[in-house]
Order: sequence, then C-alpha cells, then structure tokens
Amino acid sequence: MIDPSELRYTTPELAAVFAPESHVRRMLDVEAGLARAQARVGVIPSSAADAITWACHGESYDVAALYAAAAEAGTLAIPLVKAIGERVGAEVHAFVHWGATSQDVIDTAFVLQARDALAPIDADLLRVCASCASLTERHRLTLMAGRTLLQQAVPIPFGLKAARWLGLAMRQVLALRTQGAASLVLQFGGAAGTLASLGDRGLAVAEALAGELDLPLPDLPWHAERDRMAALAAALGVTAGAMAKIARDVVLLAQTEVGEVGEAESPGKGGSSAMPHKQNPIDATMGLAAARLAIGQVSVVLGAMSQEHERGAGGWQAEWVALPALFRFAGGAVSRVARVLEGLQVHDERMRANLGGGAGLVMAEALATELAPHLGRAAAQQLVQVLGMRARTEGRPLRDLALEDPRVAAVLDAGQVDLTLDPGSNLGSAQAFIDRALASYREMLAADGQDADPSHR
Amino acid sequence: MIDPSELRYTTPELAAVFAPESHVRRMLDVEAGLARAQARVGVIPSSAADAITWACHGESYDVAALYAAAAEAGTLAIPLVKAIGERVGAEVHAFVHWGATSQDVIDTAFVLQARDALAPIDADLLRVCASCASLTERHRLTLMAGRTLLQQAVPIPFGLKAARWLGLAMRQVLALRTQGAASLVLQFGGAAGTLASLGDRGLAVAEALAGELDLPLPDLPWHAERDRMAALAAALGVTAGAMAKIARDVVLLAQTEVGEVGEAESPGKGGSSAMPHKQNPIDATMGLAAARLAIGQVSVVLGAMSQEHERGAGGWQAEWVALPALFRFAGGAVSRVARVLEGLQVHDERMRANLGGGAGLVMAEALATELAPHLGRAAAQQLVQVLGMRARTEGRPLRDLALEDPRVAAVLDAGQVDLTLDPGSNLGSAQAFIDRALASYREMLAADGQDADPSHR
Amino acid sequence: MIDPSELRYTTPELAAVFAPESHVRRMLDVEAGLARAQARVGVIPSSAADAITWACHGESYDVAALYAAAAEAGTLAIPLVKAIGERVGAEVHAFVHWGATSQDVIDTAFVLQARDALAPIDADLLRVCASCASLTERHRLTLMAGRTLLQQAVPIPFGLKAARWLGLAMRQVLALRTQGAASLVLQFGGAAGTLASLGDRGLAVAEALAGELDLPLPDLPWHAERDRMAALAAALGVTAGAMAKIARDVVLLAQTEVGEVGEAESPGKGGSSAMPHKQNPIDATMGLAAARLAIGQVSVVLGAMSQEHERGAGGWQAEWVALPALFRFAGGAVSRVARVLEGLQVHDERMRANLGGGAGLVMAEALATELAPHLGRAAAQQLVQVLGMRARTEGRPLRDLALEDPRVAAVLDAGQVDLTLDPGSNLGSAQAFIDRALASYREMLAADGQDADPSHR
Amino acid sequence: MIDPSELRYTTPELAAVFAPESHVRRMLDVEAGLARAQARVGVIPSSAADAITWACHGESYDVAALYAAAAEAGTLAIPLVKAIGERVGAEVHAFVHWGATSQDVIDTAFVLQARDALAPIDADLLRVCASCASLTERHRLTLMAGRTLLQQAVPIPFGLKAARWLGLAMRQVLALRTQGAASLVLQFGGAAGTLASLGDRGLAVAEALAGELDLPLPDLPWHAERDRMAALAAALGVTAGAMAKIARDVVLLAQTEVGEVGEAESPGKGGSSAMPHKQNPIDATMGLAAARLAIGQVSVVLGAMSQEHERGAGGWQAEWVALPALFRFAGGAVSRVARVLEGLQVHDERMRANLGGGAGLVMAEALATELAPHLGRAAAQQLVQVLGMRARTEGRPLRDLALEDPRVAAVLDAGQVDLTLDPGSNLGSAQAFIDRALASYREMLAADGQDADPSHR
Repeated sequence: MIDPSELRYTTPELAAVFAPESHVRRMLDVEAGLARAQARVGVIPSSAADAITWACHGESYDVAALYAAAAEAGTLAIPLVKAIGERVGAEVHAFVHWGATSQDVIDTAFVLQARDALAPIDADLLRVCASCASLTERHRLTLMAGRTLLQQAVPIPFGLKAARWLGLAMRQVLALRTQGAASLVLQFGGAAGTLASLGDRGLAVAEALAGELDLPLPDLPWHAERDRMAALAAALGVTAGAMAKIARDVVLLAQTEVGEVGEAESPGKGGSSAMPHKQNPIDATMGLAAARLAIGQVSVVLGAMSQEHERGAGGWQAEWVALPALFRFAGGAVSRVARVLEGLQVHDERMRANLGGGAGLVMAEALATELAPHLGRAAAQQLVQVLGMRARTEGRPLRDLALEDPRVAAVLDAGQVDLTLDPGSNLGSAQAFIDRALASYREMLAADGQDADPSHR
Repeated sequence: MIDPSELRYTTPELAAVFAPESHVRRMLDVEAGLARAQARVGVIPSSAADAITWACHGESYDVAALYAAAAEAGTLAIPLVKAIGERVGAEVHAFVHWGATSQDVIDTAFVLQARDALAPIDADLLRVCASCASLTERHRLTLMAGRTLLQQAVPIPFGLKAARWLGLAMRQVLALRTQGAASLVLQFGGAAGTLASLGDRGLAVAEALAGELDLPLPDLPWHAERDRMAALAAALGVTAGAMAKIARDVVLLAQTEVGEVGEAESPGKGGSSAMPHKQNPIDATMGLAAARLAIGQVSVVLGAMSQEHERGAGGWQAEWVALPALFRFAGGAVSRVARVLEGLQVHDERMRANLGGGAGLVMAEALATELAPHLGRAAAQQLVQVLGMRARTEGRPLRDLALEDPRVAAVLDAGQVDLTLDPGSNLGSAQAFIDRALASYREMLAADGQDADPSHR
Repeated sequence: MIDPSELRYTTPELAAVFAPESHVRRMLDVEAGLARAQARVGVIPSSAADAITWACHGESYDVAALYAAAAEAGTLAIPLVKAIGERVGAEVHAFVHWGATSQDVIDTAFVLQARDALAPIDADLLRVCASCASLTERHRLTLMAGRTLLQQAVPIPFGLKAARWLGLAMRQVLALRTQGAASLVLQFGGAAGTLASLGDRGLAVAEALAGELDLPLPDLPWHAERDRMAALAAALGVTAGAMAKIARDVVLLAQTEVGEVGEAESPGKGGSSAMPHKQNPIDATMGLAAARLAIGQVSVVLGAMSQEHERGAGGWQAEWVALPALFRFAGGAVSRVARVLEGLQVHDERMRANLGGGAGLVMAEALATELAPHLGRAAAQQLVQVLGMRARTEGRPLRDLALEDPRVAAVLDAGQVDLTLDPGSNLGSAQAFIDRALASYREMLAADGQDADPSHR
Repeated sequence: MIDPSELRYTTPELAAVFAPESHVRRMLDVEAGLARAQARVGVIPSSAADAITWACHGESYDVAALYAAAAEAGTLAIPLVKAIGERVGAEVHAFVHWGATSQDVIDTAFVLQARDALAPIDADLLRVCASCASLTERHRLTLMAGRTLLQQAVPIPFGLKAARWLGLAMRQVLALRTQGAASLVLQFGGAAGTLASLGDRGLAVAEALAGELDLPLPDLPWHAERDRMAALAAALGVTAGAMAKIARDVVLLAQTEVGEVGEAESPGKGGSSAMPHKQNPIDATMGLAAARLAIGQVSVVLGAMSQEHERGAGGWQAEWVALPALFRFAGGAVSRVARVLEGLQVHDERMRANLGGGAGLVMAEALATELAPHLGRAAAQQLVQVLGMRARTEGRPLRDLALEDPRVAAVLDAGQVDLTLDPGSNLGSAQAFIDRALASYREMLAADGQDADPSHR
C-alpha cells in the first residue's frame, strides 16, 4: 500500500517503514509487548499475554478497514484493540490494551517506526560523508572559483568545498543520532498520565514494557509535551536543509555556462521530453524538492506544540501525517544527495578554465593584498577596483592592466604580479582546513569502528 | 491506490481526484486533447489524433511503473509519452506530445485535477453555509456568553456567532470560485515558452487545446511564474484557517465545563480506548488537524515561487506534492466542519446557565454603561471593577453587590438594576447583524439559483 | 522611531506607515472619527466630539509609555483611551471610545495603515511593470538561451522573459488592488460584536464611522474571523514570491560565468570588504531576503486564524507584529526589484555568445523536430541525443557532427542544417506572446488613465 | 533605538542585546579582537592593533548612517570598516579588518549576541522550572480533572500537570545549553573560506581570534553551511512551542467556566477597555503570540539553508532579521510564561468542584476497570458507556445510576462503588511520576550548584 508517486521523494525503505500497514504492525508490537510486560509484572495472566502476542503477530489485519474506522473513532487504537479482542476471544479481550490509552500505543508505535527510519537515513548520510571525503581527498588541489553572491570571488580548491559539505553532513549524522537517542522514548501513561488502572504497579509495567520494546523509560509520560518529537522534527528539517545546500551547489555548478560538475548519466535519467540533448540534474533537483517538503512539515510540528491539557485536539493528530512525511522527505533528500555525490562527474579542466574567465578578476583580492603594504590598504583597494572595472568593461586581463599601471609597476615587477595572480599560490589555509575536516571524519568513523580511508570505500 | 490513512484527513472524492492514477488519467486527457487540437489546426494528421485519442483513453497504464520511471527521468511525462508511443506504433509515435514540454502536460493535468477538486469543496462549503444559516435562524434569540480571550465578556445570541461563521464560510465560497477562475488556465509553451516546434501555428494550437480542455488561454505560458498556483494555494490555506476557526469554537464550546454544544453521536464515533464515557469532538479535532496540515503546505508553495528561468529545479517539483496535499487537507477540513455543523447539538439551557455562572459579571459592561451618565465613565468603570472583583472573590452575585452599594443605589433602583443586568435586553445590534448576514446568504444562493430558506434545506 | 536596520528590507515610506507612532496616530484618528460619528447620530454631544477630536489631533502622545502600558494591559487601546481622557477632562472622558472595544480601534487603525501602505506598493509594482514593458519592447529580438532546470534548453528572446516578468507583476498589481478592496473594511462591534452599549443605534454609528474613515461597512464585525486579513497577507506573500522569481533570475543571469545582466553600478553599492572587484547584485539579493521574510509571516497569519470565540488569545496579538512586518518586507521586495529592473544592464552580446557556448546544443530540439518527419520522432530524438552526447564529450559543434552523420546528410543539406540550427529562426510564437503581454499592459494602464508607451516613461 | 512596540513580545534585556547599536558594538568587538589576534601572531604591528582597539571602543558611531550605507553596500561591514579606518588614520587603515570578509565579522558578531541572549533566556527558563517545581510540590495532592481532547478524562493531581510542565521546561534548559555550545563558534575564513590574505598564518590568527573572543574554533569556516544557526533556531522554536503548551493550558484553565487558575492581578493588567470586570490572562496570551512569531521565523531560517557556494545571496541576509527576531520572541515567550507561573493563582476548590461537575463521569474509567474482572472488559466498558450516556442526558450522578444497575449491584456494594468513584483513590503512579520529575530537577540544580528545595527559592 505504498503510494508509487511518493517514491520520487523518498526511498523504498522509508516508504515501507511509514506505510499504513507498518504503523498497524508497530501498534500490534506495542500491544503484544504490553501484554507480556503485564504478565511479567503479574497484572494479567501469562496465558492471556501468550494469546495476545499470538493474535498480534499471527494473522493479517484489514488495514483499510481499521483506518476507515479510525476516521470515525478518532484514533486507530480503538478499532485495532477491538480487532485484537475479536481474535483472542471474550475472556482474554479484557486484558488487551489493559491500562493503556490510545495515545500510548500510537506514540510508542511511531517511536519504533522513527527508530526504524533513522537507521537507513544514517546509512545514507554516511554515504554522503564518504563521497565528500573522497572528493575532498581527490580534489584537494583542484582549483576552482570560490563564489560569493554567485560572483567569482577568490580561488579555492574544490576539495575545500567538498570538505565543507563533509563537515555539514557529519554534523547531521551526529545530530540525528543524538536527537534520536533523546527523543525516542517510551510513551506510557494511561488515560491522563497517571496509569490509574494499574494501581501501584504502573511504573513496574512501564519499566517492563520499556524493556520489551528496548526503549528508554522517561521520567514522565509526554502526551501533550511534544518537545521530543518537535526537536527530532527540527533535526530532520536541519538535515534536509543541509542536503539542500549541497544540492543547490551541484545544480549551480552543473549549469550549462558553468559546467564544472555533472550528475552521473544513465539511461532514462534526466532527459527532456522536448529536448533530446538535456542532461538535467535530476537527483539534485528532486533532493531540493524533497528538502522543501520536509522543511514545510517542521513548521506544522512546531506550530502544533501548544497541545491542550493531557491530550491535544488537532495538534497531535496533525503530527500523525507531518512526522512520517518529514522522515520520508528528509530521508529522500539525503538519499538523492548520496546518489548525486557518488556519481558526481567533476570537470576540473572546466573549473580551472572558469577561474580565468573573468579576466583574472578572481585574483583581485590577492593583488590588493600585495599592494596594500606599499600603497596603504584603502589606496590599494581603490586602485584594484578601478583596474577591475576597466578589465570588465574593456575585456582585458587584470594582469595586463596592472602591469601598465605606473603605481603597480613602481612596486611590483612582472614576475611578482604573475605570482600574485597565480590562483594556486593563494590558497591560504585551505589545506589545513581540509586536513581538519578529514581528521574529524576519520575520528567519527573510528568511533564507529570503520575504516576511514576513503579510497578503500 | 488511495492511501487509507489519508481518509482521516480528506474525503474519498478528493482522495480519488488526486490519486496517482488520476494524475496519469488527466495527463492522458491532455495528450489526447493536444493531438486533437493539432489535427484541427492541421499540424498532425487526423488519423494520428484518432490513434492517440484511442491510446490515451483505451487500455490501462501501469501507473506504478510510470512513477518509478519518473523518479529517474525527472518527470512523469517522459515515460508516459513513451508508453503512449508504444501503444500507437512507430508511425504515429512522432505525433504524440508534439511541440509540448513535460511541464505543459503536468501543469495542465494538475489544473484539470484542481478544477475537479474545487467542485466538491464548493459543495461542502455550501453545506457549511447552509448549516450556519440554519443555526443562525434557529438561535437568533438563544442567549450565550460572548467570550474574549476565553473570558466571558457580554451576552450574545448564539445566532450571531453562527452568523459570523456563515459570513466567514460564504467569503470562502466566493474567494475559491474567484481564485479558481483566475488560476485555472491552460499551460502550453513548449520547451522554453516559445512553442518553437510549432512554427507560426503555436498560438492556434494553444487556442484549440484550450477549447478541447475547456480552459481559458492565458496571455503567456507560466512555467516558472507560479503566482496563479500560489494564489490558489493561499486561498485554500485561508479556507482551511477559516474552518479551523469554526472547529476551534466547537471544541471549546464542547468542553466538559462549558457543554454548550456537542457533536452528533454515532456508534464508533469519538469514544476513548480507556474512558468509556468520553464523547470526543472528533470531527472538529480532525478538522483542526487537516487545517494545520493544509496551512503547512501553503508555506511550501509560496517558498517555492522563486523558480529559476524558464523551468525551476526543485521548487516546481515540490508543488507536485504540496498542491494536491493542500487540496486534500483543505477539503478535508471543510468536510469535517460540514459534518460538525450538520449534526451540532446545541444545548441552549446550558448556554443560558453559563451566562449566569460568573456571578453575573457578564453584565458588568452594561452596568457600567448605565452608570456612566450619572457618575462619569471613569468612576463608573472603576466602581464596577471593584464590585466585579468582590463578586469573584466573595462568590456573590454582582446584582446584590450593586444594590448594596450606595453610589449605585443613589441613581438606580432595583428594577433598573435588574433590567440593566438582564442579558436579553442588552443585545444592541445583534439582530440587525444577523439580518445582514442572512440577506447576503440569500443573495448568494439567489445568484446560484437556489432556494434560500434554510428551513427548506 | 524607525529602526534603521529595517531600512535594508523595506522602504522609508513603509517604515513610516508602520512606525509605532503611526499606529498610535491612526488609533487616534479612529477614536476621533468615532466621536464625530456618534455626535452625528446623536449618541454623544457635539461638544464632546469636538473636544475628543481636538485631543486626538492636538498634542503629542508619549508613544513609548503607551506601549509600555500596553505590555501590561494587553492592548494599546486601554492606555490610549486613558491618555485621551486625561486630555479632555473628566466630563468628556466618559464619551471617549464610547461603545467600542479595543479591537475595534486596533483593527480599524491597522486597516487604515494597510490602506496607506498599499498605495506605495502599488506604485512600486507599476515601476516594475513599466521597466518590464520597456525591456520587453527593447529586447523583443535579443536572443538568449531559455533555460530549464538551469540547463540551456532552446533560444528565447530576452523580451519574452521580460514579458513574463511583466505578466507576473501585472497580476500582482491587480491582485493587491482587488484584495485590498475586499479586505480593508471597518471593524466595529463593541465588546463581543453586538454593539450592546449603543442600544439600537449601533448600526447607525457604524455607518457614520465608516463614512468618517472612508471605509466600507461589512455585514458583520470580524474580530475573530480573520480571513480578510489572512487573504491580504497571502496576497502580499504571493507578491513577495513573484518578486523573488524575478530577483532569482537576475542573480542567476548576473553570475560571473553567465554575465548576461548586471545591476546598475553606483558608488558604495555592491562591493566587497575583501574583494575590490566584486559588483554584487545587492538589490536582487536583498529583494530575495525581504521576500523570504515576508513569506515567513504569511504562515504566522494563516496559522493564527483559529481564533477563539469573539476575540482570540494569542493569534490576534501575533498579527500585530506579523501583518506590519509582512507589508514592510513585501513592499521592500517590490522596491528592490523595481530598482534592479530600472537600472538593469543588459549584455546582449553575452546573451548571444552564451547561446553558442554549449556546442550549439541549445538547437538540438529544432534539429530533432526537423528530422522527425523523415526518421520518425523516436529515431530522430535518439539520433540527436547521441549527437548531443558526443558534442559535449568531444567538445565539437553539433552542426559539424550532424553534417557528418549519414542519416542527417541523407535528408538535410548543409544549408537546411544551418537554418535549422539558427536560433533566430526558431522562436515560434514568442513575438505573439510578447504582443499579448504588452497589450494587456496597455489595457491596464489605459484603465488607470495612463500613457502606455513604455518609451514615454 | 529599541522599538517600544517590541517590548510587548520580548524582554528589555533581549531587546537591548539585538538593538542595531548592539550589533555594531559586537562587530567592533570582533574587529578589535581580530586586530589584537593578528598583532599577537605578528601579522600586523602592535601599535596598529592598539589604535584599532582604541577606535573600536572609543567614540560613538552613527549607527543610522551605517545601516543606511549598508542598505546600498550589501553588508554592514563595508561602511563600518570605512568608519573605523577614518578614526585610525590612513596608515593604520590598511590593518583594519585585515584578511577578513564581511561575513566573518557579521556572523561572529551575531554569535556573540546570541551568547549574550542565551544567558537571560536560560535564567528565565530556570524561573519557569522553579515555579513548576514549587507548584508540583505544593499541589501534589490537589485533585483536578485530567482532560483529553478538552473533555474531562480521569482525575490527576495538579502537581502532576505541573511536573510535566517542569519536565518540559527542564528539557529546554538543557537543549538550549547544549545547542548553544554546539552552535556558537567562531566564523573566520576570509573572502571564500581559505583565509588567502593571511598566507600560512590564517589558522594561527583564527586560533588567536577565537581566544580573544572566548569562542570555540570550528574545523572549518561555515559561511554557507548554516546548520549550526538553523539548529539553534530550531531549538529556540521548540522552546517557544514548549512555552506555548504551558500558556495554552493556563488560558484554558483560566476560562470563566473552568476558573481553576488565574494570572496574578495587578493595576493596569489584563483589563478591558469595554468590560470593567474582565481579568484577561494577558501574560499567557502574549506568550502564545510571541511563540507563534518565534516559530514563524524558524521556517525562514530552515528555508534559507540552501545557500549558494561560498556565500549565499538572499538566504544569509534573511537570517539577519530572522535570527534576532527568533531570539527576541522565544525569549519573550519564556519570560511571559515565567511571569504567569510565578504569579499563578491556583483555585483548588474549583478544581475539585469541576471534577464532580460532569456527574462523576470522570471516574467512569475506574468503574469500568473495577467491573472488568467480573463482567469481562468489553461488557464492563459497554455497561459504563450506557450509564455514562444516561448520566449526561438525565443529569444524574454516575454513582446513583451504577448502584441502581443490577449488574453492578451483583458484584459491588455501595462502599466499593464509592471507593471506586473516589478521585483521590485512583491516581495510579502519579506520585511516583512527580517524584521522578522532582528528582531530575534537583539533579539539574545540583549540577548547577544550586539549592534544589523549591520552598527556599
């Protein structure tokens, strides 16, 4: 029951995790876990727990009918508990869902789904990191234009750009792991958070249930305190935004007039129905789209936090759609960017050619810096600004104009000007920055027990 | 291929309009219409148009496979045109999709879907209007507390509240009709908006295609100028927000402690898995949730408007999800509110009882108004404020405290105080406002050629 | 009391309209208008109305103190009415704000501010239109690459791009005018919408007040029905998004590697603190930033629509910031784009040069179209796709590869190939589209009574 | 230059931190720190660093003129560096801002402002925690209705609600501290992130500058990788949403018909211009408004993350407004909620009275639980549901109806029914949950070195 149109924006794995039947499945896991936990604590008979576990894992449920009933009942738990009850018979029915409230089961089931979903997102983020690390290594000396406000600024190695993508992606790995650990905890409080039906054994059942599901037990139930969900949503939104940054760079670098990178070509990919020559950056484009969609859901989740009293009317129910969508889209953005980077075609000769394309203006800062000690900074900058304007309007190289200018000639000879205007000799701390990023990457992998040499991956 | 979990947030009709296969269906309609239009203008042979029309309406397409290919190709049009081509054979294949670009077909197909969707939303909004009109008529003399900042303020007839809901809903009817007419126009521009492949017959084909699909022909193609879509999205977002206002009022009025309205009860509706006595306002709750989700999509659509050059990379593709979702959720909110209002249980005795519940403080303004000419406004207000504080802290009726106060007694006798404190005698222009709202409603229905008497509906 | 940092994102005129003292000023206008209206209807003495009018327009108020008191009182109206009362003396004090509630005055004052603000935004949008019309005329034959997904697609005249910007901007002019007329109406309902304090003269006072302020009188007060405000907010958001589209195009066209347009240069504009040669597209950049900020406020306003009962707690108060901010930022985006376009440097030779830059691939669609009748569409597209890939990888012109290919040579001679690959001879309906856009523009100006010839502006 | 209208939504302290002159001040601190750092490393003369430090801290700057120039220049750094240069004279001018780019200074100055802002927000959150802890202690036995979907559900102690608020607020304290530490790092990369102008001494200068400003040095500059800012923005948005949850509860509990809590009354607070008796929950209302405004900015910041290449055009500039606004509004929400809770009037008798108000239905779950072992769960629930419906429609207590029912009478006597229906005897694990929350609070305070006994605070 996966909507095929979704697969443009997410991965099959994430689509499966959040399919309607998976939610039902996870709710059944919670109900079964609850029964076993209560049997362990002695709240219900072991035989009842066995029957419930059997009913929850045994035969298939009519997912469409359950959702149809949920549209009336308000929650999916009500028809589901009824359906389990029908399977276990009247005697055991009373022990199904004992002491729990709908929200306990729905929230905890979602927490389990979220845990299922973070694993493939983490794996895809690590693919992004590995590709970035590899690009960083391979292109640490590949010169290209650094660009600010989409104007060529000064030269950078492409490896530095990749190192910054790497840092960005690594921070998302760590942020999602940290936030996942903090957010994914058991929900169990009963009707209004007191576990009233369980008398004085509520906390014992909660502990046992947490053990059954391998989830941390929080201090308190959190039915209407949605900060854990919101913070996880926000972390996914930030990850989506991080992917959008990389995808945006790729789309811009792949422009016909820039041509510095391209996505991997493959049959059926990125063509145009009207233009046979087009090789559109489809993965980056769809990554950008998925990121926009993910970020849109963050505002829904944050806006829904003001939930009323012990269970919200409207805000919580909006999360049922918004949170799975956010996971799907954020994970889709990561996956698309992983594909982009793994197949990225880097045209280093074009990078180098573009550097010179602006009449050498990309080296203007270096010239001003070199002249400053001689002329004073303001005068140096003003002089270079004038030369730059002339270079652009007259279409002549900055080098020639500089050498013709008596103020330059008075303090620098042609060799010095050429050295100053050599992009490769003006990279400042780029290599040091690259080293720092790669060291952090190796550290992260080492902590994960993985081999850090990108060439081995 | 409708996701059953969606049906909690939308109507089956809207789910069907935006199902993946419906999008494919509407794209096929556009391709067929294009072929016929081109045959009419003489761009392709009539026999080709017949074959294409037959192929587009004949056998079924593998929707899942088309979407899977679209995930690679970037647009659904590419695999779809290929699939049509396979059905018509090599000779006719060249005439399929002639001169069009993917976006022409995708946008126009969506425009057709949007037109399909606005009709049931309009019908549901009219149901909301009819219910509001009926409530207005029936409760034009039913007294209740007007509440500001959730505090009882002064008495109002419940009919006035319903009349304001009516005005709100009517404005959405008109706004969606107006915006639908403005936004739903043909998209047809070819690869980059020049219809280059059609030589000098582009405009003629465009006109013929507009005729085939019964859509207005705009001055220009609008591939990357998304204001029409954004304005429609915004109108739907406003409608969703309007529904949320009504649903919010109902949820608040249905609180246990207020108890002035309830949703219709029916088996399986609004219960609780833990609390057998609960009658939750499920429709209002789900209407609020749907409205939140709709509004979240508006920000995606507006944020995606800065689309690049002649076709955007990322922004447009985000619309493919966001716009259908917006229609579904906004329509779902309207439908839920229609259900809420059609079955609304109004507890007028409770409304009246609550009015007196605050020690009569709800009439404090009236008392201050009555005293002002005698004591001066500031003194009158200050006096009533003091009496009000005492009423709240001492738990005594304002009336008694007022009569005991010598400053009041000096200017008003008991009969005057009682008249002043009678909620029913202090309704100002409420009836006039109600009349104005109902008159506008009758006018709207008359323009639609419908009977306006709510009792006849 | 205008925050100087704001002026980067808005115009001085809009900053002034929404300055704190302007809001107070407009509230005073409403209070004065109310007093005069009530005197006309006979609710208060003429002498009181005169005194109130004098007090409202006479001496200056301590705006900072009023806002400080408002932070406690909850609304600005409470301290303001007190301040007016102190000026008119005890006797007249009782007649100040008679029958009104805080929200009547605050909302109506904002409506007056919004009306003040729409005028300069309209004027700036007309500047955008005029510039677009002029660019359309001047560049109707200037060839450039049409670009989809930021890849060169097929040639277009720059005038067509400008015509589409024109259509986009014109639609915003009309949309804001229409929505302004629909949204900007009097708010007057008293404590909970009944005008209870005015007895049976409420509606008469409302009519007189509407006349005093030259505002339409709506059917009903609208304290908690915020659709009019939300729809106006949404229209401004769409306008902001429309401006972002134009600004985005300009930023992309101004890239060093594209260089097809530039912003007007002027001293102090667009430089870099580190790079003396930079000429950053500052106006387009700040226009994009202002648009983002505007759109962010739309979601606040829509999200705040679910206001409780007869006056909202939180939602309405959020509008006090969000709506003025939205006007300021949307207007700022319009103004920045107007500046961009008025000073736009168009480098037509660069446009033409870039067209040829992709080995002639921009004409691939034309070649495929030309070959289709001979080879069949699929075969023609496939052939051109192969030639296109070779052109890109081998760096040779498409023309040469085409002429070398026996399948092409069999059906087209060199002259035909050259004609097919001539960008200027493949513009389809571009001129017709341009004509349609300009005709609509002239029509709009004619309706405004203005001269439509862009060369005269 | 603080906008007085802002103070309704933020604290004077936060308004001051983000005033235009404070941003200039912090930029001057960065420029001075940079000069000293470079002198330490030997890049510029000590005398120059002294002069720059003197100029940066000495005389006042014309903030309005700087911002006016920034509106043209694109960044504030350009006119500011010029202004510093004028103060230090031509010779030293060349050493001002040496090797830095505008963004280095603007971002780092903002980081310093953000650090300044987190301290008072932390302090206000601790006030919220302390109030919650105190309410938890004092009301651990105060019975009230737990409410789900705004319907009475089962009894809870008010102390449990307060404990959940406490847990929510504590998590925000920790989250903001953690995110602040992760996000607030030095920005220093020069024109495009290589520190090219500093040759091989870039990293040494960066370390020295980090030391001067007491900020961590990140692996890499982060001009266009905005995840740190976005994650901080998101954390503030979550905090705002958390405050909205508490404020929402208070507004609902303060409703006239509920009356279980009230905000502290004080002169000038919460009145109505029309209704002298009103005591509006102004702080909670304004807290909700501020939270909405804060959350609106999160979507701007996340949406702006896709920044181009080495410096974004539009996205970064939107942050200049959105991030300070977010801090101001989120901090304003915290401060309003702190005020709400510190002055909260708790009406425990009303809480208890409301519990019984629903004909005892709030105990229905307990009755069903008690009956389940005897009748089976389904039958027990169904029976209680019927009794509950009768209680509501007939207006009779659940207790009486239960005792009259033969199925109940067969298994429970009057004493057992009364015990079952006693709210105080059905609180499950409430006290255990309260203990857990308070223990965590004491732990947090202990880690901060503070006294944990709320009664001592």
